[in-house]
Amino acid sequence: MKVIPGDKVIYTFKHDMDYVDKVSVGERFKVVTNDCWFQQIKSENQAIEQIDFNVVNPATGPIYVEGAEPGDVLKVKIIDIAVADYGSAAVIPNEGLLGDKVTKPVVKIIRVEEDYAIFNGMKLSIDPMIGVIGVAPALEDGEWPTGSPWHHGGNMDTTDIKIGSTLYFPVNQRGALLALGDCHARMGDGEVCVTGLEIGAEVTLEVDVIKHKSITWPIVETDEYVMIIASGDSLEKASYEATSQAVEYLKSGLKMSWEDAYMLASLVVDLKISQLVDPKVTVRAAIPKYVLPINKLMEAL
Amino acid sequence: MKVIPGDKVIYTFKHDMDYVDKVSVGERFKVVTNDCWFQQIKSENQAIEQIDFNVVNPATGPIYVEGAEPGDVLKVKIIDIAVADYGSAAVIPNEGLLGDKVTKPVVKIIRVEEDYAIFNGMKLSIDPMIGVIGVAPALEDGEWPTGSPWHHGGNMDTTDIKIGSTLYFPVNQRGALLALGDCHARMGDGEVCVTGLEIGAEVTLEVDVIKHKSITWPIVETDEYVMIIASGDSLEKASYEATSQAVEYLKSGLKMSWEDAYMLASLVVDLKISQLVDPKVTVRAAIPKYVLPINKLMEAL
Repeated sequence: MKVIPGDKVIYTFKHDMDYVDKVSVGERFKVVTNDCWFQQIKSENQAIEQIDFNVVNPATGPIYVEGAEPGDVLKVKIIDIAVADYGSAAVIPNEGLLGDKVTKPVVKIIRVEEDYAIFNGMKLSIDPMIGVIGVAPALEDGEWPTGSPWHHGGNMDTTDIKIGSTLYFPVNQRGALLALGDCHARMGDGEVCVTGLEIGAEVTLEVDVIKHKSITWPIVETDEYVMIIASGDSLEKASYEATSQAVEYLKSGLKMSWEDAYMLASLVVDLKISQLVDPKVTVRAAIPKYVLPINKLMEAL
Repeated sequence: MKVIPGDKVIYTFKHDMDYVDKVSVGERFKVVTNDCWFQQIKSENQAIEQIDFNVVNPATGPIYVEGAEPGDVLKVKIIDIAVADYGSAAVIPNEGLLGDKVTKPVVKIIRVEEDYAIFNGMKLSIDPMIGVIGVAPALEDGEWPTGSPWHHGGNMDTTDIKIGSTLYFPVNQRGALLALGDCHARMGDGEVCVTGLEIGAEVTLEVDVIKHKSITWPIVETDEYVMIIASGDSLEKASYEATSQAVEYLKSGLKMSWEDAYMLASLVVDLKISQLVDPKVTVRAAIPKYVLPINKLMEAL
């Protein structure tokens, strides 16, 4: 299996980027990802002030997907996320939702043993996820630091971006130019303190290209839901974007009036907080697949 | 079983209210609730402009709970929510998250048949919930229309307030003075169009009093989670309140530092949107019970 090594990283998603390797549709490949600190935290004595924030949030890649052209949709199936045997979390003054209450930085090293994270002696089951994953943004969307989410993906910090899920991205550039990093062994929706269980990982992916389909925001498909992942300057703005898109998909996919689709969304779509601690915050609108399967959504695009 | 009839309603939660009946700890009783329109919508031809909004959001009660004193916690177990055989939903210009896109009001009558709601021929499983439920507010909290949520409960529109769940409210007045209404046969998290499947119901409850315990926001306990339900002027503010409380409960219940509790919250607490369409919006912070069981939370209060 092809392996994309963890020393090939970017810090900005740009429309034009040099790719580090190529993969083909249907090919399984492995991506080695760094933790969000680029492994700068190795002990609980690590002073936060001494961390080099210029190398925080590295994303491995970009990876060129053969056959992906602007105007297509890139499909990325997450086959596996194998996490390292320890990771870290931190609280930092003025960071996270309750940052105003934090008086001192605290760093914690958290071991992972047989699918459990050990936190102060407590065993917490792990549920690995990818924090940062995205493609080359559209030219008109400009450049995005890997720490931010937007239309191209990026730091969506969405717990459903996990093993078994499938992502859909708009392709804005030949080869799509996929990059990823910032895995978490586990995280709560919201990521309230600004870190999850930050950890290095080996991510196994399989890609496909859906020709001539256009989407505005990334989509993640789980066993039960098709979720539109939208970001904005507030949870209300992100919710507005995600819901607008969900209503459009219900309308076109189920061939109903916009008003009926809006009403139906109120009955069946769950608006879920992904994260509220990054430069833009992220919400996902979850449509049950029994209401609108992904193939019906895609056919109607 | 005692029945509180649906014609005994309030439109404002006040510190001082006349109760309509009394119940005892451990007693099961039935509360007949009106739909949010007070049954004014009986056909899809109902003009929204002709609805009397002065009688919208009636809450049946208040019900005096014997033995509940200020400084206690009222525990309300939801035994059953039997919904009527039809309900309604509506889109209204300038209402709901996408209200600016609504050009005309639309009313839909939705039949309920054998635990399914029939929407444009689609079968949607029902999952009944209580939209409005609360107690007399603290004197310093003022008076609250039944359409708003706050510390006393009220229009929390939280999908987890459903059969099998248990609510916990601060008791601010002798007898607690419980009132409820606005049931939904189903609703998505967010209640994006401003209505769920609005429906009349018969709600069976059982109450208990936990003496000398103080909580700031209502709590709902489900099979898996203890959730703090907080409201505010934005989702960020409601999230801040809910998370602050969750971190305090983790700190005292698990006897850890505030910083560790904040970090743990980031790993295990899910911030969930309840509704973003009422005069104040509502978020719940869900703590897994395997991390902090309700009895450990209560003991530490």
